[in-house]
Amino acid sequence: MSLTPEQLAEIEAQRATPRPTLRAVSEGMEARLYKAHQVLDHGLIRVIDYMGDDAAIVQAARVSYGAGTKHVSNDEGLIRYLMRHWHSTPFEMCEVKFHVKLPVFVARQWIRHRTANVNEYSARYSILDREFYIPQPEQLAAQSTVNNQGRGEVLSGEESARVLEMLKRDAATSYDHYEQMLSQDGQQGLARELARMNLPMNIYTQWYWKVDLHNLFHFLRLRADSHAQYEIRIYAEEMCRIVADWVPLAFKAFEDYRLGGETLSGRAVAVLKRRLAGEVVTQEESGMSKGEWREFCEVWG
Amino acid sequence: MSLTPEQLAEIEAQRATPRPTLRAVSEGMEARLYKAHQVLDHGLIRVIDYMGDDAAIVQAARVSYGAGTKHVSNDEGLIRYLMRHWHSTPFEMCEVKFHVKLPVFVARQWIRHRTANVNEYSARYSILDREFYIPQPEQLAAQSTVNNQGRGEVLSGEESARVLEMLKRDAATSYDHYEQMLSQDGQQGLARELARMNLPMNIYTQWYWKVDLHNLFHFLRLRADSHAQYEIRIYAEEMCRIVADWVPLAFKAFEDYRLGGETLSGRAVAVLKRRLAGEVVTQEESGMSKGEWREFCEVWG
Amino acid sequence: MSLTPEQLAEIEAQRATPRPTLRAVSEGMEARLYKAHQVLDHGLIRVIDYMGDDAAIVQAARVSYGAGTKHVSNDEGLIRYLMRHWHSTPFEMCEVKFHVKLPVFVARQWIRHRTANVNEYSARYSILDREFYIPQPEQLAAQSTVNNQGRGEVLSGEESARVLEMLKRDAATSYDHYEQMLSQDGQQGLARELARMNLPMNIYTQWYWKVDLHNLFHFLRLRADSHAQYEIRIYAEEMCRIVADWVPLAFKAFEDYRLGGETLSGRAVAVLKRRLAGEVVTQEESGMSKGEWREFCEVWG
Amino acid sequence: MSLTPEQLAEIEAQRATPRPTLRAVSEGMEARLYKAHQVLDHGLIRVIDYMGDDAAIVQAARVSYGAGTKHVSNDEGLIRYLMRHWHSTPFEMCEVKFHVKLPVFVARQWIRHRTANVNEYSARYSILDREFYIPQPEQLAAQSTVNNQGRGEVLSGEESARVLEMLKRDAATSYDHYEQMLSQDGQQGLARELARMNLPMNIYTQWYWKVDLHNLFHFLRLRADSHAQYEIRIYAEEMCRIVADWVPLAFKAFEDYRLGGETLSGRAVAVLKRRLAGEVVTQEESGMSKGEWREFCEVWG
Repeated sequence: MSLTPEQLAEIEAQRATPRPTLRAVSEGMEARLYKAHQVLDHGLIRVIDYMGDDAAIVQAARVSYGAGTKHVSNDEGLIRYLMRHWHSTPFEMCEVKFHVKLPVFVARQWIRHRTANVNEYSARYSILDREFYIPQPEQLAAQSTVNNQGRGEVLSGEESARVLEMLKRDAATSYDHYEQMLSQDGQQGLARELARMNLPMNIYTQWYWKVDLHNLFHFLRLRADSHAQYEIRIYAEEMCRIVADWVPLAFKAFEDYRLGGETLSGRAVAVLKRRLAGEVVTQEESGMSKGEWREFCEVWG
Repeated sequence: MSLTPEQLAEIEAQRATPRPTLRAVSEGMEARLYKAHQVLDHGLIRVIDYMGDDAAIVQAARVSYGAGTKHVSNDEGLIRYLMRHWHSTPFEMCEVKFHVKLPVFVARQWIRHRTANVNEYSARYSILDREFYIPQPEQLAAQSTVNNQGRGEVLSGEESARVLEMLKRDAATSYDHYEQMLSQDGQQGLARELARMNLPMNIYTQWYWKVDLHNLFHFLRLRADSHAQYEIRIYAEEMCRIVADWVPLAFKAFEDYRLGGETLSGRAVAVLKRRLAGEVVTQEESGMSKGEWREFCEVWG
Repeated sequence: MSLTPEQLAEIEAQRATPRPTLRAVSEGMEARLYKAHQVLDHGLIRVIDYMGDDAAIVQAARVSYGAGTKHVSNDEGLIRYLMRHWHSTPFEMCEVKFHVKLPVFVARQWIRHRTANVNEYSARYSILDREFYIPQPEQLAAQSTVNNQGRGEVLSGEESARVLEMLKRDAATSYDHYEQMLSQDGQQGLARELARMNLPMNIYTQWYWKVDLHNLFHFLRLRADSHAQYEIRIYAEEMCRIVADWVPLAFKAFEDYRLGGETLSGRAVAVLKRRLAGEVVTQEESGMSKGEWREFCEVWG
Repeated sequence: MSLTPEQLAEIEAQRATPRPTLRAVSEGMEARLYKAHQVLDHGLIRVIDYMGDDAAIVQAARVSYGAGTKHVSNDEGLIRYLMRHWHSTPFEMCEVKFHVKLPVFVARQWIRHRTANVNEYSARYSILDREFYIPQPEQLAAQSTVNNQGRGEVLSGEESARVLEMLKRDAATSYDHYEQMLSQDGQQGLARELARMNLPMNIYTQWYWKVDLHNLFHFLRLRADSHAQYEIRIYAEEMCRIVADWVPLAFKAFEDYRLGGETLSGRAVAVLKRRLAGEVVTQEESGMSKGEWREFCEVWG
C-alpha cells in the first residue's frame, strides 16, 4: 500500500486541528485517529471515530449493579469480573468506527458477523480500482492434510512461482476486460453493476465498519485465533493492537479470559480432575472422540 | 425532579474540563452533554456520549456511492435523498448514549425496541428509591371509546382526585412494605431480588441506552407519534429536540419524510388519483374498510 | 395454575387432528405441542410451534462444509464438533415458539435477551387478570451475605409469614384499586394504559416468545445456571427438558460443553498446568484476585 | 439449470413420505417444499422448511391486543390493520428456510440484510463447481445516463457479443487455473482457501437462508422493487410467488401497502392537498429539489 500524496495530505488535515469536547477521551485512540495501518499488500485499517473508554465500561456497570459492586475496589477488578462472568452489556457501551480496505474474499468472511454497521464502496455506482491481493510466497501453502479448512506446508519455489503467475495474469486480464466492457469509447459501455461480475475475488474493496466493543471482542476471538485464515487474522491482529491502546484494561481482561483462555467440556473437566488426583486417563476412558482427545492433548499434554 | 446538590455538582464537574479531540464534534450536542432534561415528575434524559454528526452520514454515504453521488451538489440534498430512498446504513454511522430515568411501565414499552444497548439499574443488586410517577390531573383521562389503546376525555375533578389518592396511597404502602421486608433490623431481611416484586409499575428505574441514529429515528417515528402513550411520547419529544441540535440536517429530513409524511396503500393511491382527476369516490368504491377509510379521510378530507 | 375447562378443551382440540406434512418432524416435540407445563404458582410454558430437528443442524452444516466434513462419520460427532468449536449458524437453523405465562419481574429479566421475537399481552388494550406470584415459604430467603445478587438462608417461619402477608395484601389492594379505577360504573373510568401503573411486579403477564436454537442455548446457559434467580431458572429448567426431547443430540452436546463445562482464563490454565506437574500454587502466585481464586477453588479444589 | 438425476431423485424422496404433525400447516407451502424453482441460468430457490401461516399472525396479534381487537371482525381485516400501522412482531411469528443457489455478486448484496440466519457453502472446505452466471443478451444493458446505479438501453448485438465472449473466456480461464492450482498431481496443491481468490464474482455459490416473515417482507420491498438490480430482483420475484402461496392474506396486505403503496414527505402531502383543492403547484413552490420533484411527478403526473 502506498498512499497517494493527496491521501496523506487529507490525513494530515484531519489530524491538524483538535477541537474541545466534553466527552470521554482515550489518549491512546487519539494518537491513532485517521492514520493508515497497512495490512496485506494494498489493504489498510484506519480508526475514523470512537466512543467511550475503560471508564465508560465501569460507569455503565455501576448503573447496573449500583451499590452491589462497590466492594470491587477498583476499575480493573470490576472489568475482569465482568469479563469472567460473561457480562456483555457494559462492553457494548463503547463503540468504534473503522475504515478498512480488504480483498473481497476476506470481506465475505468478515460480513458474516452481523452485529455491526457497514457502508461498503459500491461497484454498482462506482468503478473499482486495479488493486489485487497477491500473496507473499511464504503465504502460498498447500492444503492441510489434517485440517479441511487450513494450510499445510509452504509450496516449493517452482510451484509457488506458477501460482503467482496465474494469479497476476488472471487479475490483469479480468481487469483489462472490465475496463473494456465499461468503456464508452466507440461503444455504449456496459453498466457497472454488470461489468463487475468479471472481477476475481482478490480485488480490493473498502468499507466503513462500526461495531461495539462486545461484538468486536467476539469478532477478534474468532478471527485473531490461530485457526482463522491468515488473510483475515492479520486484520484482527492489527485491530487487537488498536483496542489495546483504546481500552487497555478491557483488552487485558479479554486477552486473559478469551484469547489466552480455554473452554472445557464436562468430560474434559472430569479427565483433568482425575489427572490432578494422580490418575492416568486414556482416550477410551475419557468419553471423548479421537478428534476431541487430540485437541485436548494439544493443550494439556 | 429536583437533582440533589451532589448530582448538580457532579454534572458541573463533568462539564468543567473540555479536552482536545480529533474526532467529529457537534457543537449542538456539546452544549447538551450531561445536563439533565426533566421529563414527567421525577424522570430525566441526559446525553452521556455521542459519535458522529451530519458530515459523518455524508462521509459514509460517499464511501458507498463513490463518484455516483457527486452530482448531488450538497450535503443537505444527499441526506434528503438517503432518507427518501430508505437508505439506512449511513444513518447507522452516528451513535448516541443517553442516561434515562423513567417509570417501569414506560421502560417495558421502550425495551421492545431491540436494536439498542442497555444497562439498567438492577433491583437484584441495589435498592430502588422511593420515587413514583403520579400523573398530573390533566393527564388522567378516561378510556377512549373509539380507540382500544388510547385515552378519551379528562376525568372529572372528583374521579381524578379518587384516582390520585389510590395511586399515592398504594405506592406509599408498597414501598413501606418493601423497606420492611428488606430490613435486617431484628430479622434476617428478605433478598432484594424477591422484595422488589411488591413494587408497583409506576416506580422509577434508570438506564443507559445507546443506539444508532437510524434505529433512534425508528424509535422516534413510533414513539413521538400522536398515537403513542403520553408517558413515553414526552420522552421521545425531548429526544427529538436533542437530535435536532446534534444532526440538524438529518433531523430536518426525518421531520419532513417520517414525522410529517404519510404512507399510502395502493388502494389509497388509486383513490387520490381519481380525486385529482375530479372524481368523487365513496368508501364502498375505494376497496378500503371503514376503519381504513376513516383514517384516510382524517388526512385527506 | 389450574387451567379452565375451556382452556383444557382448546388444548385437546389443538392436539386432536394431526395433518400430513413433508417437513422435518420431531416426535419428541409433537408429544409436547400445546400442552401446558406448569411453572411457579400460576405460570406455564407451552410449545406452540417448532421448525427443524437434529438432522436440520447437520444438513445446514454440510452445506457449509461440504466434502470437508464427510470424515466426521456420524451426526452426533458432527454436532459435538460444531458445539466445541463455537459454530453458531447451524444451530440457528432450528426455531421454536413458546407461549409463556410469567410474573412481570421475571419478564423484565427475560426480555434482556434481544435476539428473539416477542408478542406480549398488552395492558394498554386489555385488562390483566388477578393473578400474582406468591412464593412458596421455602423460596423466601434472606439476602446473601457473600453475593450481592443472590439469596442466603431461608427466612424463619415468623418472618416468612409476615412477608407473605404483605405480598398478598398489597397485591389484593392494588388489584382492587385497579378495578375501581377502570370501572365505568357511575364514573368515566380511567384509561387502561394508566390504571395498569398501580399493579405490582409480581402480577402475571404472558407472551409468545420465538427464538432460534443457538440463541435459546445462550439464554439457557445463563438462566439455567445456578447463579440465576430461582424464578427465571425454573422456567429455563423446564425448557431444557423440552429441548432435550426436541433435538436430543444437540441438547446432549450443549449439556456437556456449556452447562457442564468450564471456562478457564489464561492464568487459570497456567495454574492447572503447574498443578498437573505436581506443584502447589497459592493465590498470591496465581495472579488471580481473591474472588477469582475462590471461584477457581470451588471447581478445582 | 439442469438438476442431475441424483438431485431429482433426492427431491422425490423428500416429497415421498408425508408424516403427521400437530403444527400449523400451509397447504400452499406443502405443495412447494423441496422443489427447485429455477432462477437465472444456473440458480435456484427451494423451500426447505417453514413455520406458521396466516392464522399464526392473527393468533400472535390477539395475544398482544386481547379483547382490544375483537371488533376487527375477521382475520383479513386484522392483518391489513397490522400492516397499515407498521406492527412488526406478529409477522415475525412466521419463519421460512430457503435453499438458494446464486452468483457471488448477488450474494454480496443479499447478505447486507443482517436479520437472517445463513449457512453458506464454504470454499475453504470444499471445491466450487464450474458454474458461472452468463447473462442473456437482452440483459446486457448500457450504464444508465440518468441513474448512477442502473441500466439503460440494451447493448447492440456486436458489443453484446464481445461482452459475452469476454465473460465466458475469463470464467473458463480462471476456473482452469483454479483447478491447476488445487491439483495434487505432480505438485503439492494450493490450499482451497487461497485458490478460491482467483475466481470471478459471477461464479455460483449456495446457502441456506432462514428469515422471519417481517424481515422477509422488508427484503422483498427493497429487492422486488423496480430499482433493484435485475439479478437479485428475479430471486425476489420468485420468493413473492412462494410467499403468496404460503400466507395469502399477509401477502395481499404486503402487496397493497408496501409493493403498491407510496410514501409521501410532508412537502409532498402539502402539494397534493393544494392540487386536490384545484391549485396548480410548480416545483419552485413545492419546496422539493428537482430530483424529488421528478420522482413525485412520475407517480402523480
